[in-house]
Amino acid sequence: MKRIEIIGVEGMGEVRAGDRVGELVCAACARQGIELADDDVLVVAQKIVSKAEGRLVNLNEVQPSAQARALGRELDKDPALVELILAESRRIVRKGGRALIVETHHGFVSANGGVDCSNVGIGQAALLPKDADASARTIRAEIRQRSGKAPAVIISDSFGRPWRLGTVDVAVGIAGMKAVKDERGTKDGYGYELRAAVTAIADEIAAAAELVMGKKDGVPVVLVRGCGIEKKEEGSVKELLRPAAEDLFR
Amino acid sequence: MKRIEIIGVEGMGEVRAGDRVGELVCAACARQGIELADDDVLVVAQKIVSKAEGRLVNLNEVQPSAQARALGRELDKDPALVELILAESRRIVRKGGRALIVETHHGFVSANGGVDCSNVGIGQAALLPKDADASARTIRAEIRQRSGKAPAVIISDSFGRPWRLGTVDVAVGIAGMKAVKDERGTKDGYGYELRAAVTAIADEIAAAAELVMGKKDGVPVVLVRGCGIEKKEEGSVKELLRPAAEDLFR
Repeated sequence: MKRIEIIGVEGMGEVRAGDRVGELVCAACARQGIELADDDVLVVAQKIVSKAEGRLVNLNEVQPSAQARALGRELDKDPALVELILAESRRIVRKGGRALIVETHHGFVSANGGVDCSNVGIGQAALLPKDADASARTIRAEIRQRSGKAPAVIISDSFGRPWRLGTVDVAVGIAGMKAVKDERGTKDGYGYELRAAVTAIADEIAAAAELVMGKKDGVPVVLVRGCGIEKKEEGSVKELLRPAAEDLFR
Repeated sequence: MKRIEIIGVEGMGEVRAGDRVGELVCAACARQGIELADDDVLVVAQKIVSKAEGRLVNLNEVQPSAQARALGRELDKDPALVELILAESRRIVRKGGRALIVETHHGFVSANGGVDCSNVGIGQAALLPKDADASARTIRAEIRQRSGKAPAVIISDSFGRPWRLGTVDVAVGIAGMKAVKDERGTKDGYGYELRAAVTAIADEIAAAAELVMGKKDGVPVVLVRGCGIEKKEEGSVKELLRPAAEDLFR
């Protein structure tokens, strides 16, 4: 019987700039009686990683450019927030209504470029980690050093989608696992050769973890056990980014 | 401690036209010693629902139109398959490379309009259920009648995404639960009023279930326990469809 468990890691407390997230995770797991295993996946909310890495900005210290002020008026957004979004972005993909969809320097296409004012304190905004794969590798190394086990680590964030309402969580950084399961060229039970069978496992795990994290439940770390992931030391979220040249919606 | 379990329901066997999926689910659960509960969610792969509803087509019985033949040449696709895709669609949203992205009569924007040749037998294609909310309600009613319990039911399918590689599973039909969790207007732990906090819970549950289903593991039904869903008799996948007028990518 195939069974996956998704377990909230509680009592992480308030994460501050300079904190080592991997050590906090190990301490919280220990208090909860959780023994980590190499085949586990730990999903860590982007927000606490950004806090630990000092990626918080006081909005009233931001000087909006003329472009940011104009976009702020057009989209009914705080011009300081728009300034941060533009600084995080390579280019604007779409704008309209109150939405500003950009391609970030990492290559993510997302609303507001991952800049987010929730769960960080009034008047503050959190930026995505500069290199969330590197953040995930650091967290994983800290966990390995502390516990002797090297679970995979996914850093997750909530992204909107075109066509469908509501956010789902996706991976923005990955360490220690393959991000996709590629079954192209293998055959189904009828002998039909699968053609489109690439599954974004890391995104599905991030989505599953959000069901426990919630948006305001104070559970920024979730253990996912039993997924049968493929371990890969040099795993990266880049496996999940569709090249712009092959993308029909960019 | 918040914990979700995702359990594969095994031994469903080959589903045939006219089968009652809800009764098959109850029988498989009973053999496996699973007692269903009202707060459970059963995720059922679209493919077996389409089989039960006779939504399979022999490709060699399809007469491709001139438009389907031209598109088939342009996109290197079987013209019979293209004919089925066009018949399922309101309109073409994008085409390019080998991809044909359409808006289906249900309002889903998806590659190939949900028409899929995997896991159905060589030379066959499965169409999405005509009304997968109705299919989910029927399955739920059969389960309620057989077991006395009324878990929520999600019918799932694998969808590609723009910008990101790989498919994730999403809900195409829903019964007995709210599809989204809407926390707009509530406050986070710092007193900040959440603005974009609508979470596509049903899609996250479908994604989580896929981790157990796989593409060729013969596990088309998955029990998800512990999500804390909000029950809603008249739940519908329509809650998840972004109105075309508000969509920047259509």
